[in-house]
Amino acid sequence: MSTEPLVVFTPSGKRGHFPIGTPILTAARQLGVDLDSVCGGRGICSKCQITPSYGEFPKHGVRVAEGALSEWNKVEQRYKDKRGLLDGRRLGCQATVLGDVVVDVPPESQVHKQVVRKRAEVRDIVMNPSTRLFYVEVEEPDMHEPSGDLERLVRAIETEWSITNIHADLHILQSLQPTLRKGDWKVTVAIHLGDAENAPRIMHLWPGYYDGTIYGMAVDLGSTTIAAHLCDLISGEVVASSGIMNPQIRFGEDLMSRVSYGMMNAGGAQEMTRAVRDGMNALFTQIASDAQIDKGLIVDAVFVCNPVMHHLFLGIDPFELGQAPFALATSDSMRLRADDLDLNIHPSARVYLLPCIAGHVGADAAAVALSEAPDKSEDLVLVVDVGTNAEILLGNTEKVLACSSPTGPAFEGAQITSGQRAAPGAIERVEIDPDTKEPRFRVIGVDLWSTDAGFSEAVAVTGVTGICGSGIIEAIAEMRMAGLLDPSGLIGSAAQTGTSRCIPDGRTHSYALYDGTAIGGPLITVTNPDIRAIQMAKAALYSGARLLMDKFGVDHVDRVVLAGAFGAHISPKHAMVLGMIPDAPFEKVTSAGNAAGTGARIALLNRDARAEIEETVRKIHKVETAIEPRFQEHFVNASAIPNASDPFPILNSLVTLPKVNFNTGGDSEGGGRRRRRRA
Amino acid sequence: MSTEPLVVFTPSGKRGHFPIGTPILTAARQLGVDLDSVCGGRGICSKCQITPSYGEFPKHGVRVAEGALSEWNKVEQRYKDKRGLLDGRRLGCQATVLGDVVVDVPPESQVHKQVVRKRAEVRDIVMNPSTRLFYVEVEEPDMHEPSGDLERLVRAIETEWSITNIHADLHILQSLQPTLRKGDWKVTVAIHLGDAENAPRIMHLWPGYYDGTIYGMAVDLGSTTIAAHLCDLISGEVVASSGIMNPQIRFGEDLMSRVSYGMMNAGGAQEMTRAVRDGMNALFTQIASDAQIDKGLIVDAVFVCNPVMHHLFLGIDPFELGQAPFALATSDSMRLRADDLDLNIHPSARVYLLPCIAGHVGADAAAVALSEAPDKSEDLVLVVDVGTNAEILLGNTEKVLACSSPTGPAFEGAQITSGQRAAPGAIERVEIDPDTKEPRFRVIGVDLWSTDAGFSEAVAVTGVTGICGSGIIEAIAEMRMAGLLDPSGLIGSAAQTGTSRCIPDGRTHSYALYDGTAIGGPLITVTNPDIRAIQMAKAALYSGARLLMDKFGVDHVDRVVLAGAFGAHISPKHAMVLGMIPDAPFEKVTSAGNAAGTGARIALLNRDARAEIEETVRKIHKVETAIEPRFQEHFVNASAIPNASDPFPILNSLVTLPKVNFNTGGDSEGGGRRRRRRA
Repeated sequence: MSTEPLVVFTPSGKRGHFPIGTPILTAARQLGVDLDSVCGGRGICSKCQITPSYGEFPKHGVRVAEGALSEWNKVEQRYKDKRGLLDGRRLGCQATVLGDVVVDVPPESQVHKQVVRKRAEVRDIVMNPSTRLFYVEVEEPDMHEPSGDLERLVRAIETEWSITNIHADLHILQSLQPTLRKGDWKVTVAIHLGDAENAPRIMHLWPGYYDGTIYGMAVDLGSTTIAAHLCDLISGEVVASSGIMNPQIRFGEDLMSRVSYGMMNAGGAQEMTRAVRDGMNALFTQIASDAQIDKGLIVDAVFVCNPVMHHLFLGIDPFELGQAPFALATSDSMRLRADDLDLNIHPSARVYLLPCIAGHVGADAAAVALSEAPDKSEDLVLVVDVGTNAEILLGNTEKVLACSSPTGPAFEGAQITSGQRAAPGAIERVEIDPDTKEPRFRVIGVDLWSTDAGFSEAVAVTGVTGICGSGIIEAIAEMRMAGLLDPSGLIGSAAQTGTSRCIPDGRTHSYALYDGTAIGGPLITVTNPDIRAIQMAKAALYSGARLLMDKFGVDHVDRVVLAGAFGAHISPKHAMVLGMIPDAPFEKVTSAGNAAGTGARIALLNRDARAEIEETVRKIHKVETAIEPRFQEHFVNASAIPNASDPFPILNSLVTLPKVNFNTGGDSEGGGRRRRRRA
Repeated sequence: MSTEPLVVFTPSGKRGHFPIGTPILTAARQLGVDLDSVCGGRGICSKCQITPSYGEFPKHGVRVAEGALSEWNKVEQRYKDKRGLLDGRRLGCQATVLGDVVVDVPPESQVHKQVVRKRAEVRDIVMNPSTRLFYVEVEEPDMHEPSGDLERLVRAIETEWSITNIHADLHILQSLQPTLRKGDWKVTVAIHLGDAENAPRIMHLWPGYYDGTIYGMAVDLGSTTIAAHLCDLISGEVVASSGIMNPQIRFGEDLMSRVSYGMMNAGGAQEMTRAVRDGMNALFTQIASDAQIDKGLIVDAVFVCNPVMHHLFLGIDPFELGQAPFALATSDSMRLRADDLDLNIHPSARVYLLPCIAGHVGADAAAVALSEAPDKSEDLVLVVDVGTNAEILLGNTEKVLACSSPTGPAFEGAQITSGQRAAPGAIERVEIDPDTKEPRFRVIGVDLWSTDAGFSEAVAVTGVTGICGSGIIEAIAEMRMAGLLDPSGLIGSAAQTGTSRCIPDGRTHSYALYDGTAIGGPLITVTNPDIRAIQMAKAALYSGARLLMDKFGVDHVDRVVLAGAFGAHISPKHAMVLGMIPDAPFEKVTSAGNAAGTGARIALLNRDARAEIEETVRKIHKVETAIEPRFQEHFVNASAIPNASDPFPILNSLVTLPKVNFNTGGDSEGGGRRRRRRA
C-alpha cells in the first residue's frame, strides 16, 4: 500500500496515489480523467472546476477529512470575485492533495461532456469537436537560436498539449507577430486537430487568454429548404437555428427538374451553384446576427444533403445523377476549406460533407444513419426519411441495407387537388365518423378541431386554405376506415356510401372535406386523382421497405422510425392504414424529427463520429430499386390500400377495414395499374 | 540454378531469372530497376524503351542469342511509324523474355533520370518531382456497387501505381465526370505525391493518354531582380528563363528601406506584397508566352528569397526583421497553394518555399546550401553569396555554419562615383600597368580591351557609361598592385605616384580611368570615397567569413565558392588582393553562378531534396554577426587592403603588393576608422 494520499475521481471511479502537493488537475491528467483545461493549469481559464467531498465513502473505501486539499487560495478567490464560482467548487489546478480525497468532476468541467438528446432511445452526443482552444506561453525570440515565431509557438503547443505536426494557414502568419507581442508572448490558439487528409492546423489566434467560445454550423441542405444550426463548439449547445427556402427552387421544384435545367441551359449548373451558395451565406449571416456573434468565429461547418444538392453545392454538374447508372462524381466524405465553397465565415474554417451512400441515397441518409444508428440497434429497425425521395434504411448490429424510393411530391402536398405545403391554414389532421361519414379536422396554427365551439373565430386569421401532406394521408386513411373508399382506392358515390359529401367528379367521385365557398373560401375535396397520387407515393415507399426486408430475409421489422419534417407530423396509425410502412406495433413506430440535421450536428460536435459514419457507410449494403425486379412487383402489389386479408396482422387487430368494392367492372383502376418509375 | 532465363539490366547491374514470356518492364519492376512507364505497360506511352544487347558478355557471365526476346510486334511498329523509335530500341512492355538477355536502360527511360549540371564538383540533379503523370483505366460505374467516379479512379491508381490515401481538389471533381467519359474511362492524371503536410492529391486530369508534359517554376526572388526558370517536370530541362526588376524597388532600393516603408505607411506592407505578386504573375505570363505553353500546365513552383522578401511575398509585415532580435514570423519551409499567393498558374498548383536559416539568412542561403552542399564536402568550403547582404556558409561533412554580413550596395555598383549596374557599357574588367600606371579595360557587351585596335568603333554603340561592381573591384585591386594606393586605401597624388591620372579631388585624389569628355562621354574616375565604400563592403564580407572560421576553429579554408550574379563575374585574384575573401589557392576559388536559383531548381525537380535541405538547415549553426564582438574586431582589422605582412601567404606568393604609404600624418583615413553597422 502506498503511503501517499489516495485521490478518487467521480463519476469515473478512476483512482490513484499522489505525492502531497500534487494539483488535482495533474492527478486527473495522469489518471486520464476527463477534466478540462484551456490554460494548462495556470489558474486563468477556470475550466478545471471540481467539487471535493468530505466524510466517509465506504464505496471507495476512504474517509476524507477536512484539510484533505490545500486551502482556498488567492487565485481561486480572484476568480470567484471576478466571475463567480459555485460554493463548494475548487479550481483543480490550484487545489493540491494533502490527504485522501474524493473529487467530483461536474459535467461542465469535462472536455468530452455529453450533449443530451431528448429522445430516450438514442445516444447522447459526446463533445469531441475538430477544433479546440488552447492557451500557451511562447518563448521569446533569441538571436542565438533564430527560430521563427511560428516554430516557437508550435513547440509550446507540442510541449504543453502533445499535439504534433502542427501547421498554420498563411493568414495566421500574417497576424502572428503582432498578436504574440500584444499578448506578451501568451496566446490562445484555436487548433483544428487534423484528420485523414490534413495535419493539425492553427485556425486562429487571440492575444492572451481568450475567454470566449468558437462556433460551428450544422446544415441540412434540402431540395426545398435549408436549415442550419449554429452550435457552440465548447458547450455543444445550439445557439441559434434558422432556415430558408432553397433559392434553387426557381430552377425547378424537384431535383430532376434541376438536373434538367443544368442540361438545357449553358451554365445552368453554375447558376444553381451560385444560388445555393449565396443563399447559404445569407442564412449564415442571419443566424450570426440572430445570435449576435461574429461570423468570423464560425470555424467549422458540416453539411448533409441529397446527392443532387451535394453536387450542385460543390459546383459539380449533377447531369450523371439524372440517368442510369446514376454515377456520383464522388461518394466519399469531403473535407474542404470554407472558401472552396465561397462561404463567408472564418477564413480558415473547415467544411465537412458526410459521405453519400449511393447515387440516390445521399449524405442526408448517411446523417440519418449517424443519428439513428441502425447499425448499433439490437432490434431490427426500419428508418424512413420521407421527402420527394424517400431514403430507407433497414438494419441492426448484423448489417444495414439502404435504398431510396421515388415517392414524388404528393406527400408534401404537391400534385394534390387541394394540396398545399404545411403552413398555417392547411388541414393537417382529419377524422371521419364511420357512422355519419362526417369529417372533423384541424388546421395548422389553430388548436381546435373544426367541430369545436369557437373554431370559426379561431380560424378567421388564417382561413382554411388547403390540405397538407399529413392531412391528405389522414383524410384518405379515414375515408378507407369509414367505408368511403374501396381497397383499390375508388371513392364510392353518394348512393354507395350514404353521404352527400361524395359528389360526382368526372367519371369518378370526390369527397368534400370542407366547403368554405359561402365565406369566400375554397371547396376542399379529396379526389380520385389525389388518391392515385398518394397510392403511387405510398406504394413506392412501401415497396422500398419491402425490398430491403426481402434482401434482409425478414417479413417483419421490430420498430419503425419516421424521420424528416414530414415524418414528424405523420400519424403512425394512418400511415399503416394506408400501407405506407410495413406492419409494426404502434408503440414501436416513432418519429425522429429532423434526423438528418441531428446527424449533421453529431458530426460537427464529434470528430470521431465522422470516421464512424464513413466506416458505417462503407459497410451499408446499397440496393438500387431501379434495377430490382422485386421492387416493381412490390410496387404493383402495394398500390392498393390494405384489406383485412393483407399481411398487416398488427394493424388488422386494431382497425377494422370494411370490405367494400365500388368497382363497376373490369380491373380496378388503381390496383392493377402499372407505372414505370423511370423512362 | 534456375532454369528460367536470366535478365541482366545495365547500367544498374540488377539481374534475376524470369519465366519465359515475362515482359521486360515487369522484370524491371520486380527487380526495382528504374524503368519509366506512364501507361502501366499498355504500349501507349513508350517511356519504357530499352536496348537489348546480343553476343557474349563475360562480365555478366551470359551469352545472348538472337531470339532472346520476343519478336518485334505490331504495337512497337505502330509506335515507330507514328513517332519514331531509334534502331535497336524495343518497348519494355512489349518485348518478353525468351532466353538469357542483357538489357540496357537508356537515361531517358529512367524515371529518376539525372539532369547533368555543368560544374564538375557538384552532383547532378536526380529527377524526382513532386508531381508526376500516370495513365489509368477506370472501372465503369455499376448500380450494384454505387461508388463515386472519384473513388473508382482512386482505386485504379492505388492498384496500378501503389499510391495510397489519394485525395482530389474540388475543381478535379468538377471536371471528373465528363473527362472520364470523354476518355472512355481511360485518363492520364497528374498526381502531387504528397509531403509531410499533405496527402497525395490529384492535380489534373486529361481524357485518354496525355502525350504532353507538365511544368514547374523555380524562382529566385531577389531584392533587386526576380529570376525564374520554367522547367519540364519530366525531362528536367529548363525550357525558358527570364527575369524582371523587383517592382518593389519603387518602395526602396534596399531591404531596410522597404521595411521602413512598411512602418511609415499604413498598408505599405500590403502594397509591397501586391507589387511583388503582380510582378511575379507578369513574369510567369511572359515566360509561358516565350515557351509557348499554357500557364495552366505549371503545377509546381519553388521560391527562394531573403527573409524580408520571403515575408513580403507571403503578405507578412517584415517589421520585426528591421530590429533586434530580428524575429522571423516563420523559419520553416512553407507548402502552400498557388492561390494563397494569388499566382495565376494551375488552380491546384503547389508552392514550396525553402526554409530560412535565420532572421538575416534566408531561404536563398538555404538554396545555396542545397546547390553547393557544404554539408557533403570533405574539404572545408567557404560559400559566399554576395549581394546587398552577403550570405556566408562555412562547413564540411562535420558541420556547417552560416551568417550574413551587411555588405551594402557598393558591390553592385551603387554608392560609387561612376558606379552603375552591370549592363552594356559598364567597365567590368580593369588592368593597370605597374610601370606606366596606364589602365586598360573592357566593357560589358564588347569583347575587345580598350587598348585593342577597333575598340572605339566597337564601343560606339553602348559607349563607356560607368563602372560596375566587378569593375570597381578590379580597378581598386589593380591600383593597389600598381602602387597607386596604400594599404589604408589612400590614393597618392600625381607626384607620389608618378602619373597624371591621379588628379586632385577635394582633400584627396582620384584616379582617372577613362576620359570620354572629348566625345561627349563621361569622365570615369575612381575616388577615395569609392575606395572607402568598397573597403567597408569587403571588410563586412571578410569579417563574416573570418568570424565563421573562428567559430569553426580554423585559420584557413580548403576552397572558396563565389555564388550569385556578382560572384560569377568577380576575379578571384582581385578579390583576394582586396582582401574580400580569406586566403585560398587560386584554383580552389570557383564561381557557382546563381547557386540560389540552382537550389530552387533542385528543390523543384527532386522532392527528397526538400526534406534534405530542411534537415540540413535545422543542423546549420547560425551565427548572428550583430551580437558577436569578434565580428567588430575583424571588421576594424579588415578595412585596410592587404599588405605583404597580412595573413595572405598564398596571395603574397603570387602578387607583389608594393609597400607605399601616402598618409600625410595621423591615423590613416580608412585603416583605423570604426564604423558601427547598425544604430
